Amino acid sequence: MPTASTRVPQQERSRATQARLLEATVECLVEHGWSGTTTTVVAARAGVSRGAQLHHYPTKAALVTAAVTHLTERRAVELRTEAAALPAGPRRLDRVVDLLAAAFTGPLFVAALELWVAARTDAELRDALVPLEARVGREMHRLTVELLGVDERRPGVREAVQATLDLLRGLGVANLLSDDSARRAALLHTWKRQLAALLTPDAGPPTPGSARPH
Amino acid sequence: MPTASTRVPQQERSRATQARLLEATVECLVEHGWSGTTTTVVAARAGVSRGAQLHHYPTKAALVTAAVTHLTERRAVELRTEAAALPAGPRRLDRVVDLLAAAFTGPLFVAALELWVAARTDAELRDALVPLEARVGREMHRLTVELLGVDERRPGVREAVQATLDLLRGLGVANLLSDDSARRAALLHTWKRQLAALLTPDAGPPTPGSARPH
Repeated sequence: MPTASTRVPQQERSRATQARLLEATVECLVEHGWSGTTTTVVAARAGVSRGAQLHHYPTKAALVTAAVTHLTERRAVELRTEAAALPAGPRRLDRVVDLLAAAFTGPLFVAALELWVAARTDAELRDALVPLEARVGREMHRLTVELLGVDERRPGVREAVQATLDLLRGLGVANLLSDDSARRAALLHTWKRQLAALLTPDAGPPTPGSARPH
Repeated sequence: MPTASTRVPQQERSRATQARLLEATVECLVEHGWSGTTTTVVAARAGVSRGAQLHHYPTKAALVTAAVTHLTERRAVELRTEAAALPAGPRRLDRVVDLLAAAFTGPLFVAALELWVAARTDAELRDALVPLEARVGREMHRLTVELLGVDERRPGVREAVQATLDLLRGLGVANLLSDDSARRAALLHTWKRQLAALLTPDAGPPTPGSARPH
């Protein structure tokens, strides 16, 4: 039986190996796409033996699913840290939207989109991803509510947060092949004003009952 | 030299062959994805000889680009026809958004997304798609302005139309792996009210100058 002193370093080595494999997987997906990402290429890139790689992640589906889970969690921690450093005040919402927009145009979004699209026509990957997609969606929603510091029990807040995330997903796709940053910045400039109005208790969106006749 | 009477039927046959190839291409992309779509599979599905297929579309990039162009144009005609049948009045905007949402969750969107994602890591396809993406984006914007019957010279209208299309693109991606229609319907219900307010001259979005202090 290993002693406590040998067991801990081995666990640490395992975790470090796993982390290297998962980072290399996302890098591969970004550089080569789903079809260009093979477990062999990932192991080589991570500097991990094929045996160790198969020990931790026996299939490509297991590897890519673990990679997106791991990096989504890490990205959430980073977003919380970045948001904690933001000044309070009316400009905070703008900065939070900018942080989220950066996440939806960054490498993790690109890697996830490669998987989402591939999973459409790959039954094994699809089975692995559908529960993950639901979980990531819920966590992203909760994170956004937290970063914006809003109360979801208020009418309209949940819908405004959802629309923001769906809009950002659309903007992420629009940025895939060409630099869409100028158009995105202008569009988000307007969206931030709308979102502020939707999230402010005394300046909510117009409802059918309150709309002026026209 | 062919006479006028033989030339016309041959042109018609060519057009029919092309149309069959382009429909089969989109069907293949939807069913098998980018990597499962080969020119051989498309020719077989269309019932067109390999020679005829190569004559019309010598490369896979040429075939898929032509397919998305052709079907986007056809879809635009269909959307105009469907929109022309809509009753005037306050519910028209809701129905136009529903038509657009159906387009962004339909087979053509799925096929286009396969290409957009594949083009990220395929230089030949990327070169072919970047100009097409810009053109499709502009035409979709113009079509939406036309279907909504709004005047883009009014402040805020252009941004509201853009946000609607980016939101719908995001909703299209959210629908890739699982049926997102219930969540989408609820979200669009709210969005339609916001969009109506943004597009109505006397009930525009709040601007920084008009926002109440808080």
